[in-house]
Amino acid sequence: MPDDAAQIRALITKWAESVHRGDLDGVLADHTEDIVMYDVPPPHEGLHGLAAYRATRPPFFARQAQGACFDIEFLDVTAGKDAACAHALLRCGTPGEPAEHPTLRLRLTLGLRKERGRRLVAQEHHSFPHD
Amino acid sequence: MPDDAAQIRALITKWAESVHRGDLDGVLADHTEDIVMYDVPPPHEGLHGLAAYRATRPPFFARQAQGACFDIEFLDVTAGKDAACAHALLRCGTPGEPAEHPTLRLRLTLGLRKERGRRLVAQEHHSFPHD
Repeated sequence: MPDDAAQIRALITKWAESVHRGDLDGVLADHTEDIVMYDVPPPHEGLHGLAAYRATRPPFFARQAQGACFDIEFLDVTAGKDAACAHALLRCGTPGEPAEHPTLRLRLTLGLRKERGRRLVAQEHHSFPHD
Repeated sequence: MPDDAAQIRALITKWAESVHRGDLDGVLADHTEDIVMYDVPPPHEGLHGLAAYRATRPPFFARQAQGACFDIEFLDVTAGKDAACAHALLRCGTPGEPAEHPTLRLRLTLGLRKERGRRLVAQEHHSFPHD
């Protein structure tokens, strides 16, 4: 049996692969109904709820379909019995972008909680730094 | 006795007040030695370790001393027995900036874990959205 941290790593890895494939069911499978997402684009106050989160995915999928990647390069998980958190760096450029910013990575933080024994993502924070 | 979530809210509130006052000991009091911070400025891969985190605080304190605020406007905590996470929106402009971006808020996500029975912040993620 994989331990808690390994289970969470597997959940996040599967989610990232679903994002890249444009698999909406896979992307939403392990998220809470009240998910809050601080995304790279506005609004700064975040997307609140699974319907709002779901609505923003198709444009992102379109970008993936045009050749962008969404590859986890680094992932660290802090797993508690009920709550957990994780932070990660991802390569997510389109083919044209790496020439300008070959080393820039998306910073991602996730917050998870358990509902009826299942780990679910309740918070996502995606960002790039500002110079 | 305050419950877990209330204790974490108090810890985060005290930390934000210490940031605003420029109280370095207060800012560092409840952080792990291996704190990872994804900050608004580069580097995108984050600051790793308490010494690196500490080193970036004085310039931020100088900005606070020039009239910037660092006020928590919204804070939500998911408290587990051992791990926990929180997300927040903060007003953190200088007096000149609110005229341009009066409603813009800093997005903050925190990850906490317990060490010897004490809650400590192990991850911070600060960002603004990109248009």
